[in-house]
Amino acid sequence: MSGNNHNEKGKLKTEKISDSTIRRLSIYFRTLNRMEKQDIKRTTSMELAEIEGISPVMVRKDLSFFGTFGCRGVGYDVQSLKMELAKILGLSRGWGLVIIGGGRFRNVLINSQILKENNLVIKKVFETDPELVKNSDDQVKVFPMDQLEAQINPAEDHIAIIALPPPEVQAVIDRLGKIGMKAVLYMASRSVKAPDNMVVMNQDISIKLGMMTYKVLEKTG
Amino acid sequence: MSGNNHNEKGKLKTEKISDSTIRRLSIYFRTLNRMEKQDIKRTTSMELAEIEGISPVMVRKDLSFFGTFGCRGVGYDVQSLKMELAKILGLSRGWGLVIIGGGRFRNVLINSQILKENNLVIKKVFETDPELVKNSDDQVKVFPMDQLEAQINPAEDHIAIIALPPPEVQAVIDRLGKIGMKAVLYMASRSVKAPDNMVVMNQDISIKLGMMTYKVLEKTG
Repeated sequence: MSGNNHNEKGKLKTEKISDSTIRRLSIYFRTLNRMEKQDIKRTTSMELAEIEGISPVMVRKDLSFFGTFGCRGVGYDVQSLKMELAKILGLSRGWGLVIIGGGRFRNVLINSQILKENNLVIKKVFETDPELVKNSDDQVKVFPMDQLEAQINPAEDHIAIIALPPPEVQAVIDRLGKIGMKAVLYMASRSVKAPDNMVVMNQDISIKLGMMTYKVLEKTG
Repeated sequence: MSGNNHNEKGKLKTEKISDSTIRRLSIYFRTLNRMEKQDIKRTTSMELAEIEGISPVMVRKDLSFFGTFGCRGVGYDVQSLKMELAKILGLSRGWGLVIIGGGRFRNVLINSQILKENNLVIKKVFETDPELVKNSDDQVKVFPMDQLEAQINPAEDHIAIIALPPPEVQAVIDRLGKIGMKAVLYMASRSVKAPDNMVVMNQDISIKLGMMTYKVLEKTG
């Protein structure tokens, strides 16, 4: 947690921050990023809470793990809270991303402003489809899958995003584990085995779909 | 909430269930789905909590909104809790999905077992790239984007998944709004405007990436 000096009470050392808190910090960060673009200068825990559909108490509690931000009755300065959250989340340093698979969908990632603006730089792409390697018109270099081990350097390629069908995910995680990849985000709805020292997360669309069906029924009965 | 008769205390009518609770119910559902496949017959709030990294109290609280499940000291029957959650989430009825964009990435969705098994059926695909329309080898019919209005019927196509780059998302939501689409899940990191009667959710990879960078630093310093 270098770069974070807002820890007067030493909470960081003694308390493990929950995944839910980290997730909400990441959501606040995105919201502050949008506010900054809309030239909004100040916000409040009430406003942040309303946007995210949670309680203002939870917003203040989440932020309190990392020190004192904002002033009672005055709220938060958007830009400086955003910068503090960037430090906490580690987004104030640069991160190299590699995308494995995804076909043309990776343009959604490659064109993402929020990634570019926040030091999450897509550096390499690996593709199973030889046609997509050959006809690559992306800004980043596209390699065939068999060059995974030769081209990835975990010292500068920090996070791999795997956008392959479920049955192909485990084999790629195994290969990345062998070359010491530190972090993997995979998009398939399945469980995987990974080395202990690898941070593995899952962006699973089935969870959002379960929320959507609930909300559609809630609205339409 | 038809199909849910586990509401002895009438909580559903008087209390609005938070998005976080619905999200966790959807996560429990996925976990129970995996347990069932591994032939696991029983589980506990402790076990569910451990898998998801939350407290057992929260698991029990989330489930308590919808009635009484399981028995103290005995835990939950995996299959019947999964079925109850399916009913609550609306997954016990059939849902038609359409995918807009995504290129070859949509194979991740089309090949997803959990969608197929839970009545989330991908029925139609709309593609901006004419080559991908022409060379479609998917199990579902692929249409060009200009047939969106002609081919989508909101009475049977319930949820649209938009996997297009950020600048293209709003125009598609506008078009879907005009034909009365009830639910949209979009994958770009941006905010959008949508009609009041449309359920709109965002699967934003930047939030997960912010969590990952935190966790990588937590592990490696």
